[in-house]
Amino acid sequence: MSTPSLWAIPLGGLGEFGMNMLALRFGDDIIVIDAGLMFPEQELLGVDIVIPDITYLKQNKHMVRALVLTHVHEDHIGAIPYILGDLNVPIYGTEFTLAVVRKKLEEHALLDSAKLCKVAPGETTTIGPFQIEYVHVTHSTIDCVALAIRTPVGVIIHTGDFKIDPTPVDGRPFDLHAFARYGQQGVLALFSDSTNVERPGFTPSERDVVTRLEELFRAAPQKIVVSCFSSSIHRIQQVINIAQSLGRKVGIVGRSMVDNVEIAHGLKKMNIPDGSIVRPQDIRSFDPKRLVVLASGTQAEPMSALSRIAVDNHRFLSIGENDTVILSARLIPGNEKAIFRMIDHFFRRRVLVYYESGRSAPIHVSGHASQEEMKLLLQLVRPKYFIPLHGEYRHLFRHAALAEQVGAVSGQIFLLESGHPIEFTPDGRAHRREPVPAGRVMVDSGSLEEIEDVVIRDRRHLSEDGVVVPIIAIDKHTGRVETPPEIVSRGFLPSEDGQEVLARARDVVLKTIEQSSAEEKMDWSVIKEKIRVDLKRFLSKQTSKRPLILPVILEV
Amino acid sequence: MSTPSLWAIPLGGLGEFGMNMLALRFGDDIIVIDAGLMFPEQELLGVDIVIPDITYLKQNKHMVRALVLTHVHEDHIGAIPYILGDLNVPIYGTEFTLAVVRKKLEEHALLDSAKLCKVAPGETTTIGPFQIEYVHVTHSTIDCVALAIRTPVGVIIHTGDFKIDPTPVDGRPFDLHAFARYGQQGVLALFSDSTNVERPGFTPSERDVVTRLEELFRAAPQKIVVSCFSSSIHRIQQVINIAQSLGRKVGIVGRSMVDNVEIAHGLKKMNIPDGSIVRPQDIRSFDPKRLVVLASGTQAEPMSALSRIAVDNHRFLSIGENDTVILSARLIPGNEKAIFRMIDHFFRRRVLVYYESGRSAPIHVSGHASQEEMKLLLQLVRPKYFIPLHGEYRHLFRHAALAEQVGAVSGQIFLLESGHPIEFTPDGRAHRREPVPAGRVMVDSGSLEEIEDVVIRDRRHLSEDGVVVPIIAIDKHTGRVETPPEIVSRGFLPSEDGQEVLARARDVVLKTIEQSSAEEKMDWSVIKEKIRVDLKRFLSKQTSKRPLILPVILEV
Repeated sequence: MSTPSLWAIPLGGLGEFGMNMLALRFGDDIIVIDAGLMFPEQELLGVDIVIPDITYLKQNKHMVRALVLTHVHEDHIGAIPYILGDLNVPIYGTEFTLAVVRKKLEEHALLDSAKLCKVAPGETTTIGPFQIEYVHVTHSTIDCVALAIRTPVGVIIHTGDFKIDPTPVDGRPFDLHAFARYGQQGVLALFSDSTNVERPGFTPSERDVVTRLEELFRAAPQKIVVSCFSSSIHRIQQVINIAQSLGRKVGIVGRSMVDNVEIAHGLKKMNIPDGSIVRPQDIRSFDPKRLVVLASGTQAEPMSALSRIAVDNHRFLSIGENDTVILSARLIPGNEKAIFRMIDHFFRRRVLVYYESGRSAPIHVSGHASQEEMKLLLQLVRPKYFIPLHGEYRHLFRHAALAEQVGAVSGQIFLLESGHPIEFTPDGRAHRREPVPAGRVMVDSGSLEEIEDVVIRDRRHLSEDGVVVPIIAIDKHTGRVETPPEIVSRGFLPSEDGQEVLARARDVVLKTIEQSSAEEKMDWSVIKEKIRVDLKRFLSKQTSKRPLILPVILEV
Repeated sequence: MSTPSLWAIPLGGLGEFGMNMLALRFGDDIIVIDAGLMFPEQELLGVDIVIPDITYLKQNKHMVRALVLTHVHEDHIGAIPYILGDLNVPIYGTEFTLAVVRKKLEEHALLDSAKLCKVAPGETTTIGPFQIEYVHVTHSTIDCVALAIRTPVGVIIHTGDFKIDPTPVDGRPFDLHAFARYGQQGVLALFSDSTNVERPGFTPSERDVVTRLEELFRAAPQKIVVSCFSSSIHRIQQVINIAQSLGRKVGIVGRSMVDNVEIAHGLKKMNIPDGSIVRPQDIRSFDPKRLVVLASGTQAEPMSALSRIAVDNHRFLSIGENDTVILSARLIPGNEKAIFRMIDHFFRRRVLVYYESGRSAPIHVSGHASQEEMKLLLQLVRPKYFIPLHGEYRHLFRHAALAEQVGAVSGQIFLLESGHPIEFTPDGRAHRREPVPAGRVMVDSGSLEEIEDVVIRDRRHLSEDGVVVPIIAIDKHTGRVETPPEIVSRGFLPSEDGQEVLARARDVVLKTIEQSSAEEKMDWSVIKEKIRVDLKRFLSKQTSKRPLILPVILEV
């Protein structure tokens, strides 16, 4: 019998941002690298999240040996709760990554059935024909690894997400030596992050935000609210350090922010001096001149802490003239309208607002490699084959072009999209193969902040439960609801039972609106999200159905 | 009887971008400056355009003497066809502005009833108590004016949109002298454009795009497609000049682009050498090495020329490897997702695509003043009162702060939002007054490219015609429509007649999908817009009703 080949099958994250997933198959053994989600575009109304189609893995279920994680970001781990039912395999990851996964699985009541295998940078595990070394890389969160995978046909390197930070906050640098060693011994194929390929130069170090944050903290006359991604443990650590050095204490609001800090602190991955934290319920009464509040919600997610603070609807704090708000995060394209609406609310309250303008010292730096770091990595690894990962089509294209220009790839560069496999044959050659099923699966979860009991349902399933369209007429001058909400539905309930439920659903919608502030009512994305969440909870309790809910606001 | 006061009543464009409109009232005389539209945010599904609420003007209809236009952009003239029915007053504007308005009114069959009064920079017209001098300013389109309005209580200056371009393409500079003269004589209030207040420095001259465009044109191995705003007559002129100098001829596609060039050329505002133009129907057969195509659709509007070219669905040209596409326009926030999807289609076709990256010489420059120009204007005009116009709240706020810093305002700076009037009393003082009705009115027109007979209908009206929700299930692997389209409707037609119409509507939807390319089907914003347009045409013909149409795509 001839030696089998190695197949690399990208199932998500090539030609799109988010939902990263790559399968490696050798003979009858498959390992899956990462299982990410993607937040839906606005066109996908009523859908909470999007995950990769794993039909290929389900078809080859008996071969799947493990899920191996590179780091904790949602676009790398977010799909786990939704695929574990179909694919209950051991999950390998570093300490912090697994701790967050554990929490997630607990919330989904899936922890008991899951097998979590903790690994550390520098260690090697063997899974069937795959010998995997976890190589420490720097990024915007902690405990991140690249994977160097020894297979019978050669070494595969998967970078995960990375930047090459020469001065990381925790003092643990990018493991250049490991990449150099593999490069010297010979690498069959390099799969690498393309996110920032449009940026020339070198991404600034995470430490570079200190200058500006310190300046803004010193200048702040009253309390300071800093918002950053809740998994940006280094950023959060630096905010705590600066606050401490300037005699301010730190309050933390927003569930994901609180959870991540608790986990990282519990694992001794953060240094939080005793007495430096203010409990959320004490924030209101605390001296604003001695206070920094860390809040989640940089992208103006409708229910997030920062969105609520902006419209003065947060139970633990209010904000006003001479307070400072710092958005220490990228404004992700597609979210700008919502983010700027939120920022305008702060301006109306005469808050001092700071956000990325690209003109002064950074209040945010990226976690992804820019062009010079990508070139450096290519030179270190000198692979035979190169496949750009993580990007929309133009990013993959530009990364391929950059590799061409560097000239460190001895064989071929493959520009793949999700679903397009490459076969590496034992003779050291690589071939494009016929596409396997791949694509987006829509998932209906709880709201963004509060995950209830969650069911996987692709859109076929959703259409079985029908569609409910609540229509609310709001007077544009007064903000009052003019007529009782109307509800259109289809395929949801037979009309006899349906009438009764829909009549009560109208009351639910009316109540949601009544309990919202004037500013929330003016911000249609907020009010629509609130209606959707409340209505979903009601309908699911009443009918155990989960129809697709599409709120429509009529301004009359 | 005491002397009346002067009231300035902003009806749109303060606290939002677009739909600019300001009313000035002295006693029983009102003039209205500009009547713009706004393109709806994605949350306003199914709405084509948004115009200002003119309740205040309708209530005081007998006092309204004139509509005075500053320039031709849609956010300054786009609402005219929709308000003329309620407010048929003479319209004052420069030659090019009025020519475009005339064309627009013709399409709406409103031209016969309209009175258009042509004015020129440097001229003065008297309308009731208002003496209006038209002051030439530079901007991204041609024939733009600021207004210096002498009233019984003092001079009001309204800048319109402007930049201070020292080297305009047509050689007609910003009229610094007029502003200086008014500043010397004394100005009661300055109303000024805030769009670019977040940009430090001086906006580059329109001429500054030549360097990079010339470089890209010289480097282009095959045909070149340049897309810019169709009213950017200077940009179009420069593209024609560069093409001419490099031995390329120019084809023009996209209705708005063709119309604007025809109008500007007819008015001798452009210089198009004989024989330099290729007719659209000859583009396919023309030597690609000697061709530049100007196309509208920089914002990836679903039906625009450029969007069609990107998915190879334009009747006059196809594009492929080694062709060049240059996006000479700003990527407007909120549109990026769609624009990048379009750009990715070009990358997949191996087209050389260039767009604003902020890293090399500009392929686009703004038409709006940056901070240094704003300061200069404030110093020239030295008004007693200052009111920032044209911007979301934070722009108005920053413009007010900038004026504070300059110190050239002797009285007060007012941060107003739409609907908030200021009264200037004869004693030279200014007071905030109670808000008047103001807000957004939704208008349902034809598609963006093709304006059919258009009806004003605010959302109350729409809700009278009901809501139709076509639901299409598309197989995510094959792109095929899996089940017959379902159509949910409410308040549209009584159920007996309704069944028949909706059954045929399903066929319309099915036909639209069948006639779309695979790429269009993957681009949900395109396919949804096509379905909406076709279905609207069908339903309106069958029923003379115009329900709100909200297509939903289910990926199964």
